[in-house]
Amino acid sequence: RIMRPDDANIAGNVHGGTILKMIEEAGAIISTRHCNSQAGEPCVAALARVERTDFLSPMCIGEVANVSAEITYTSRHSVEVQVNVMSENILTGAKKVTNKATLWYVPLSLKNVNKVLEVPPIQYARKEQEDEGKKRYEEQKLDRLETKQRNGDVIFPVINPEPHTVGYSQSSLIHLVGPSDCTLLGFVHGGVTMKLMDEVAGIVAARHCKTNIVTASVDAINFHEKIKKGCVITVSGRMTFTSNKSMEIEVFVDADPFVDEPRERYRAVSAFFTYVSLSKEGKPLPVPQLLTETEDEKRRFEEGKGRYLQTKAKRQAQMQQAAQQ
Amino acid sequence: RIMRPDDANIAGNVHGGTILKMIEEAGAIISTRHCNSQAGEPCVAALARVERTDFLSPMCIGEVANVSAEITYTSRHSVEVQVNVMSENILTGAKKVTNKATLWYVPLSLKNVNKVLEVPPIQYARKEQEDEGKKRYEEQKLDRLETKQRNGDVIFPVINPEPHTVGYSQSSLIHLVGPSDCTLLGFVHGGVTMKLMDEVAGIVAARHCKTNIVTASVDAINFHEKIKKGCVITVSGRMTFTSNKSMEIEVFVDADPFVDEPRERYRAVSAFFTYVSLSKEGKPLPVPQLLTETEDEKRRFEEGKGRYLQTKAKRQAQMQQAAQQ
Amino acid sequence: RIMRPDDANIAGNVHGGTILKMIEEAGAIISTRHCNSQAGEPCVAALARVERTDFLSPMCIGEVANVSAEITYTSRHSVEVQVNVMSENILTGAKKVTNKATLWYVPLSLKNVNKVLEVPPIQYARKEQEDEGKKRYEEQKLDRLETKQRNGDVIFPVINPEPHTVGYSQSSLIHLVGPSDCTLLGFVHGGVTMKLMDEVAGIVAARHCKTNIVTASVDAINFHEKIKKGCVITVSGRMTFTSNKSMEIEVFVDADPFVDEPRERYRAVSAFFTYVSLSKEGKPLPVPQLLTETEDEKRRFEEGKGRYLQTKAKRQAQMQQAAQQ
Repeated sequence: RIMRPDDANIAGNVHGGTILKMIEEAGAIISTRHCNSQAGEPCVAALARVERTDFLSPMCIGEVANVSAEITYTSRHSVEVQVNVMSENILTGAKKVTNKATLWYVPLSLKNVNKVLEVPPIQYARKEQEDEGKKRYEEQKLDRLETKQRNGDVIFPVINPEPHTVGYSQSSLIHLVGPSDCTLLGFVHGGVTMKLMDEVAGIVAARHCKTNIVTASVDAINFHEKIKKGCVITVSGRMTFTSNKSMEIEVFVDADPFVDEPRERYRAVSAFFTYVSLSKEGKPLPVPQLLTETEDEKRRFEEGKGRYLQTKAKRQAQMQQAAQQ
Repeated sequence: RIMRPDDANIAGNVHGGTILKMIEEAGAIISTRHCNSQAGEPCVAALARVERTDFLSPMCIGEVANVSAEITYTSRHSVEVQVNVMSENILTGAKKVTNKATLWYVPLSLKNVNKVLEVPPIQYARKEQEDEGKKRYEEQKLDRLETKQRNGDVIFPVINPEPHTVGYSQSSLIHLVGPSDCTLLGFVHGGVTMKLMDEVAGIVAARHCKTNIVTASVDAINFHEKIKKGCVITVSGRMTFTSNKSMEIEVFVDADPFVDEPRERYRAVSAFFTYVSLSKEGKPLPVPQLLTETEDEKRRFEEGKGRYLQTKAKRQAQMQQAAQQ
Repeated sequence: RIMRPDDANIAGNVHGGTILKMIEEAGAIISTRHCNSQAGEPCVAALARVERTDFLSPMCIGEVANVSAEITYTSRHSVEVQVNVMSENILTGAKKVTNKATLWYVPLSLKNVNKVLEVPPIQYARKEQEDEGKKRYEEQKLDRLETKQRNGDVIFPVINPEPHTVGYSQSSLIHLVGPSDCTLLGFVHGGVTMKLMDEVAGIVAARHCKTNIVTASVDAINFHEKIKKGCVITVSGRMTFTSNKSMEIEVFVDADPFVDEPRERYRAVSAFFTYVSLSKEGKPLPVPQLLTETEDEKRRFEEGKGRYLQTKAKRQAQMQQAAQQ
């Protein structure tokens, strides 16, 4: 579809969250279709996880987003979908890859939302594809277990914070879940959640460096807990790390099923977003260093540095590999 | 994309206007892309006309709309696009044709919006395709001239109208044109206008028969005048004709460029929408007869009857033709 | 227009904020049109104030909102607009007054947003209308001065609050101002701000009593400071007072022009919203009493009680007057 002014920031760059939402909708359609392709209990595919994704080039107002999706692996209870997004300038005809994302879906019964159904297996062109898919499946399973433990953290408010401290830029928003945010099962679309997360992370980044910022990448996101229609969700973000030209922001989503439910507020999702700051000509600008004050902030900064160096090393290895081929 | 609760009425049927908006967006993308396919002045394709379209089967919340578009004819300054919409129930896999529409676009220069550019010609597989396209082109050109004259009519308010009279159900809404309603040129997307027209026509129909109503068809719509960002548009509808099971509603769109422009309020579009009334089981219900009071109302009723009988005759002829083949 | 699922809460009652937004749009259109009715510098009418308004009966999904607006007074630099909202059930034909609102607009030059233009005078049918309008004008002018001083207050966060305390239900959201939120001048529509305020106030009320809540009334709101496109706005709400069957919530709007502007964060608007709690059958429910802890909370509770008793007395006086006539 054509990108509108509402999809973009003042500089005309489409929000990463808008793109993530389109990606998730495409993934939900293809996996729901696949899981219902054999006679049996009708089901809706729910997003369980999005792998790390890089935003390779910005998309602008007036461009057309082409989204294509393909199922690349099925386990007994989950579906892996690969989604590619291309931006097309229909005036010049120029096309660019915006990003590629890998998503995992789980089919939930339409009659009993707590029942996970079986996924019809797909056919692989080559045996290696199945083996590689299985490897990816095992890896993400491990990672999902790990993040489940990290989820206890809370963002505390700070009074009168200094510029460039963690407290200065941290932000949160609340959103009442409406009918259009939800799937047929009455649970929030993963894409809606990711769009809100990107919105908060973007505000944190902009508050820190006071320039035009764009989403550079999103770390793997695990959706441990469903969020029901009528909940209030609180999305909070704080900066964890800055390199010379990038900022890492941790985002938490808490759901508060405050009407008609005996349940307490709970952590539904958490993730790391990376942003870069751009000049008016679209060139990356230096980012002011994050000032850490507490022990926790210093620890998170070091952890963020670890993730940053790891990603950098991985990317260099890939580039060398590509150069050798 | 997946149909959401906001796209539909209370009974869960997707508004005809939502479908028209998707159709127009697809048409605008393919024709803008085509008109820019040769080096030259960049342009944006603006909707000039939509041919009569029938809504063959209703679409529901949760279904996926598949929209495909193809260029079927080019004249020197205009492009004909054929758009097909299929509704797909991704739970059952069932697909149904929702409707087919034919749209005409005109390329306007991005630098000078009053300049119509030339359209690169397309290749036809067979000579007859070109001839048939040319015939369609000439026909719509004639029809556009005719409607240009009809446009002077105005809807007057009525105090304390009786049920089932024209005055009882007539309705209007105003809308302030925002940035997301507009193309790159700063003019309202034809699809946005059609969505508002369907909204008003639907309210007129529901007021008349007080049941669940759905769009059955839309007569050819000509977009004579562009509408600029910042305008206030008034969309008004009145019932013109009822048959046993259908209602015809005439809709006017007036634009009021009330800031920054010396120009008076003007008629931008007008069109006829046909609605049917449905029971809870989705069966067509009888429609209360429209009570005409003034001479004008009686004349319009007769004209509407003429259009109704003509369409009926055309459809029967097509069915006989199909049966003979 | 027809009320959609996204306009309403889970119980199907349309949000007060949605109605306020429609009211403001109607007011902005009629006053901008009036102020441009004489040749001169083109201008856009900006909302300066909304008088106290009561929500007389809830509106539901599927109903049609009829909004009508009329200019009732003009001073040299401002316009008073009276807007009435009726809800119409188009299935039964039943119509009910939803609310009546009085709004004040000021014409700002399109070329120089800081220049207030002169308003063309309207003709009054009777001399008393002009005198009464002038009285209302003077009254609101006084009230605007008063609130300007109250605006310094800040909502401090509370860690681990007890149920029914002020800290327990207080909430805030941030919103990045997008193009669709703004007028032609690039400033946020007053209606958009009021919708966000109602959203936050509604969440505060729902968190306090954990039932279905609806907006009962909104106190006079003064828009002292414009909010520009690209700002981040923080909308925060805290409960100030509870009676047996109602809750009063104070809402603050702070604007943070963090990109490209030397200006600090500032208070743009503040207002009091009153909510009631409804059972599933739509009957008012008792509200849990607000537990006040600090001196400030106790003081605000007493002030809220004062406003509550004053409003109650006024309403009783009006009813007696009406009974005597």
